[in-house]
Amino acid sequence: MFTIAVDVMGGDYAPEEPVLGIAEALRKHADLKIIAFGDKESIESILSGVRYPAERLEIRHTDEVIGTAESPVVAVRKKRSSSLVSAIRAVADGTADSCLSAGNSGAVLVAAQAYIKRIPGVRRTPLGPLIPTLKGPAILVDCGANVDARAEHLHAFAKLGSAYLEHICGIKAPRVALVNIGAEEEKGNKLVKETFPLLKADKHLNFIGSVEARDLLAGEAQVIVCDAFVGNVALKLVEGMLSMMKNLFRQAVYSSTRAKLGGMLLKKDLKKVLDTFDISEYGGAPLLGLEGLVVKCHGNARRQEVATACTQSLTFLEQDMNTVMKQRMEESNE
Amino acid sequence: MFTIAVDVMGGDYAPEEPVLGIAEALRKHADLKIIAFGDKESIESILSGVRYPAERLEIRHTDEVIGTAESPVVAVRKKRSSSLVSAIRAVADGTADSCLSAGNSGAVLVAAQAYIKRIPGVRRTPLGPLIPTLKGPAILVDCGANVDARAEHLHAFAKLGSAYLEHICGIKAPRVALVNIGAEEEKGNKLVKETFPLLKADKHLNFIGSVEARDLLAGEAQVIVCDAFVGNVALKLVEGMLSMMKNLFRQAVYSSTRAKLGGMLLKKDLKKVLDTFDISEYGGAPLLGLEGLVVKCHGNARRQEVATACTQSLTFLEQDMNTVMKQRMEESNE
Repeated sequence: MFTIAVDVMGGDYAPEEPVLGIAEALRKHADLKIIAFGDKESIESILSGVRYPAERLEIRHTDEVIGTAESPVVAVRKKRSSSLVSAIRAVADGTADSCLSAGNSGAVLVAAQAYIKRIPGVRRTPLGPLIPTLKGPAILVDCGANVDARAEHLHAFAKLGSAYLEHICGIKAPRVALVNIGAEEEKGNKLVKETFPLLKADKHLNFIGSVEARDLLAGEAQVIVCDAFVGNVALKLVEGMLSMMKNLFRQAVYSSTRAKLGGMLLKKDLKKVLDTFDISEYGGAPLLGLEGLVVKCHGNARRQEVATACTQSLTFLEQDMNTVMKQRMEESNE
Repeated sequence: MFTIAVDVMGGDYAPEEPVLGIAEALRKHADLKIIAFGDKESIESILSGVRYPAERLEIRHTDEVIGTAESPVVAVRKKRSSSLVSAIRAVADGTADSCLSAGNSGAVLVAAQAYIKRIPGVRRTPLGPLIPTLKGPAILVDCGANVDARAEHLHAFAKLGSAYLEHICGIKAPRVALVNIGAEEEKGNKLVKETFPLLKADKHLNFIGSVEARDLLAGEAQVIVCDAFVGNVALKLVEGMLSMMKNLFRQAVYSSTRAKLGGMLLKKDLKKVLDTFDISEYGGAPLLGLEGLVVKCHGNARRQEVATACTQSLTFLEQDMNTVMKQRMEESNE
């Protein structure tokens, strides 16, 4: 039995969607217990009429909520009993095995670093979402709120990302690449030029060199290493472009009778293509490099994504991800 | 009559495609003269059998070629009589009104800065391609080879981009936005945090704040300001994703008889949607902020793109773009 602490007040569709998401996760997994942090009355009202195993849900009332626009450092310091900070503190004090939030990314990062220990050798904890490529999943580290990273941070991201793909996804010696604006070693900005030799010299990594953004989704690179600013831009651009294209296709298919018929015949195939790069399918992303498990969902997560993120969290816990990460970081420093 | 100096040896499909591109441009524009820098024998052999107004094409033989993988600074210094450097020097010494290359981006930048004066007030010359959005074209500055920019550089990029959209594209008071990882003013990396107040305080700019990558193609932002590393990643990611999706659709449409029929009916509409974000349609991009005109094509430019870039260059020359830019930079410094 594993316990997940969930901040149900975080995200664009909170508390409705996170609450319905955890109900779904509880129905699906008999070995899951959830502690929901949030407004008790709202949670109970959302759950009224919903079928779920109530004996495995504990509601802990919180008054404060950290908003998306708040400054992470200030909010985490001032709102210690907010749903977000409370969920993270539940992991820190051992009440829960992991926690989940779709709230303010920066605040999740700040609170996690404030309350949960980092694995020795890790200075910064990257957010590492899996992204779909033409050759299967890849991990994009960092996509979080750690901006202005240094070369040694990116080096640690590469190690953590490799360990994740190897131990959680079962990919042996995953191919590591550095996001760059050219394939040649001498190209790039200062950060990339300083990081390149570190990755190249690390014999524990299967480093294949630079990857240009053009090839990011082709799948040659499996551990895609970059600064959080660049990772965030890449991730959100793919999401935004996909959602715009879906809308355009929808409009196109309704533009004429001829197109409607074509759309009917092609519907399944079109959907398949558009789903190829659908990042939301992958649920949440773990903050890597901590001794406790913190999983972050998209701000716009709906119930399905929250439920998927619970399933992922169970996988991470069953595989004892953080211990594995810790061992890998120790080995790589030997 | 305007004269364009073209480096026909630059780019993935050189010299074949650039040479055929200039032949097309010469056929199309009676007021165009071209000086082609490159291997004379190859150029003549490509042109044999091609119909074009030979009296308006001058071939200047060059032996040296700068490769894509070469270090820009070293290559420009050592290969002064390469096709690339020669084309740029033709602008510098007044032989040509503008120049065009699909070669090594870094080398184009270095050579342009070495041989052509910068407009007063401009420290760095950004590459500003037009990109398609849901609401018409936007300019992405910088997408070039100027990495590790400072806030004052980004401020100048915003001014140059605004002047371009206003005077070349006829868009009044174009909306300027800064690429960021959140919409709030306090988000972002060091560079973004330093640039934000400069743009906000500049009363000559129509600054609308931050734009997240998710909304980059939605069209709210018309002058999209970022460091060249980020711009390059964004531009190439859009290109890469689009080309992968085109391939996937092609495969999907041939996967069954049913899909084939659907594809036939939807062909026109599908193409329209996929073309919405097709960056290559826009031809080349000018290096902004120079006293001479330098236009850069994609490395993978085919003849059509080279011809389009010649047409664009003529537009820039007819509108006397550089003088306008110079005036705008002076005004904005008053």
